[in-house]
Amino acid sequence: MTDIRMIEAAAERLKGHARRTPLLSSPFLDEIAGRRVFVKAECLQHTGSFKFRGGWSAVSALDPKVRARGVIAFSSGNHAQGVAYAAQQHGVPSVIVMPSDAPQLKIDNTRALGAEVVLYDRATEDRDEIGARLAKERGLTLIKPFDEPQVIAGQGTTGLEIAEQAAEAGISSADVIVCCGGGGLTSGIALALEARAPGLRARPAEPAGFDDTARSLASGRIERNAALTGSICDAIITPQPGNLTFPIMQRLCGPGLVVSDDEALRAMALAFLRLKIVLEPGGAVALAAALFRSDRIEGDAVIAVASGGNVDPDQFCGALERFAR
Amino acid sequence: MTDIRMIEAAAERLKGHARRTPLLSSPFLDEIAGRRVFVKAECLQHTGSFKFRGGWSAVSALDPKVRARGVIAFSSGNHAQGVAYAAQQHGVPSVIVMPSDAPQLKIDNTRALGAEVVLYDRATEDRDEIGARLAKERGLTLIKPFDEPQVIAGQGTTGLEIAEQAAEAGISSADVIVCCGGGGLTSGIALALEARAPGLRARPAEPAGFDDTARSLASGRIERNAALTGSICDAIITPQPGNLTFPIMQRLCGPGLVVSDDEALRAMALAFLRLKIVLEPGGAVALAAALFRSDRIEGDAVIAVASGGNVDPDQFCGALERFAR
Repeated sequence: MTDIRMIEAAAERLKGHARRTPLLSSPFLDEIAGRRVFVKAECLQHTGSFKFRGGWSAVSALDPKVRARGVIAFSSGNHAQGVAYAAQQHGVPSVIVMPSDAPQLKIDNTRALGAEVVLYDRATEDRDEIGARLAKERGLTLIKPFDEPQVIAGQGTTGLEIAEQAAEAGISSADVIVCCGGGGLTSGIALALEARAPGLRARPAEPAGFDDTARSLASGRIERNAALTGSICDAIITPQPGNLTFPIMQRLCGPGLVVSDDEALRAMALAFLRLKIVLEPGGAVALAAALFRSDRIEGDAVIAVASGGNVDPDQFCGALERFAR
Repeated sequence: MTDIRMIEAAAERLKGHARRTPLLSSPFLDEIAGRRVFVKAECLQHTGSFKFRGGWSAVSALDPKVRARGVIAFSSGNHAQGVAYAAQQHGVPSVIVMPSDAPQLKIDNTRALGAEVVLYDRATEDRDEIGARLAKERGLTLIKPFDEPQVIAGQGTTGLEIAEQAAEAGISSADVIVCCGGGGLTSGIALALEARAPGLRARPAEPAGFDDTARSLASGRIERNAALTGSICDAIITPQPGNLTFPIMQRLCGPGLVVSDDEALRAMALAFLRLKIVLEPGGAVALAAALFRSDRIEGDAVIAVASGGNVDPDQFCGALERFAR
């Protein structure tokens, strides 16, 4: 199981490879939220999302002989790019199994980062079967997107940085709101904060209709989403929390926060105007919760993790057209 | 005159107030340029541009009694916001004299940062006369946008960070391309690099038709632009290099680089796609030069300063529409 020692070991392996992303702020956002708002800009991480951390952590932790045969991942996008780039930087092959309806930008980027992309039809094909066959044929190691201790450890390095940066900003007590799909980032950050900044508490943020983690935390058992598609937040519409991530979140996290797709788009527009960063919808839900769920948050400061920025230009400009006025 | 000791003193005063902006990169940009490209993301600075550094440096250097009466600045936008926010954070009043055709976003932001904005008509009114009258009436101190030693010192703190970050990235020799209007940022960075990273050389980048600094460096004397308007790079279309900044640039800088407006827009689109940062046209010319003037640059690495991100949504999306495909 992932613990603070694994996270610190991952941080050592990531040193000089992952970027220490900045903690941004703006008086304009503070005014909207009614408290100080700090944004951990993981969209500025290599490959445009925090997923590079988990990918690098997992690939770098493999036995060199095993690693040399290559890795395989299933992903709609950000995990794909993170694993592909981590594999390329290690000089080993990667195969990424992606749904054929994934955003074109993510497919293109994954290929350009050296991966072999295998597309499958979500409706008619079984990705697990495709992946298992390829892994067996080529001796590839599967890098799961979240329910994998070394991936959680890699994402947790974000939490080590937040603990340091919050201390530098004089924040000893605050909620840390995290965009949550399967819970790898949320649980990793929660573990890091438990050890390094016990006054900070992780809380998952999700899009409406895909609030499996919020409901699971409320009921005390793993709940599933009714739908598998139908949110613009494609990066984080995982069906349910992970078997490894959920117990961590249950032990350490505060209640989940839920925002609408429009609130995510509005947060994207505000991040453009006030922070000069590019967020994708799924990467903006934590900021949306920090700004628009003030009544569910306590304290004079809040930290939101802006987890990714891999958004198609049309969708981005649609958000600006509607909300950056 | 500004020297390295003044820059280091400014860095001390800026500590905990200015942001240490990250040095970003992407393999996709490296491929375009044919060498490693590093981007100093000053768009992530407070108020969305490096101008906050110079504003803070100048305001913080004033005698407290003088400062308490307030400051005044002329600016089309970024200097205005930098000075306004620095004054607000010091708890002193600021008056900003702006042309009435400045981007609305910049006018609004300057007001929201606590400044009194006085608009004037570029065609019929004399801003110097307006400013001199207000300064005299209220005892305000004028903070010039670039030809002012403490402003140059503040901008130079960007160069101290570049020197450190380049060393961390293993770069000992490279051109540092800087978006150049009056030359405050370029000359400040040049001074910092001279002292802290002598293998790095500052070079100004300008939009075509407004290449006063490139021509001045070539001829050895201050040259003026023929036109005062007509580029989308509104932040950097200063008529000529400063009397203080030019001798510094002449002594320390490499030849100027010139890019078209379309190349600046293309660099904005690439910064969106590959770095997840928001740049305004004038803040993108250095990146454009790094990417599209490869034949005028030597070495296996180049550093571009992305100086600002205060762009209207329509202009930004126009750039994406044309160049993010």
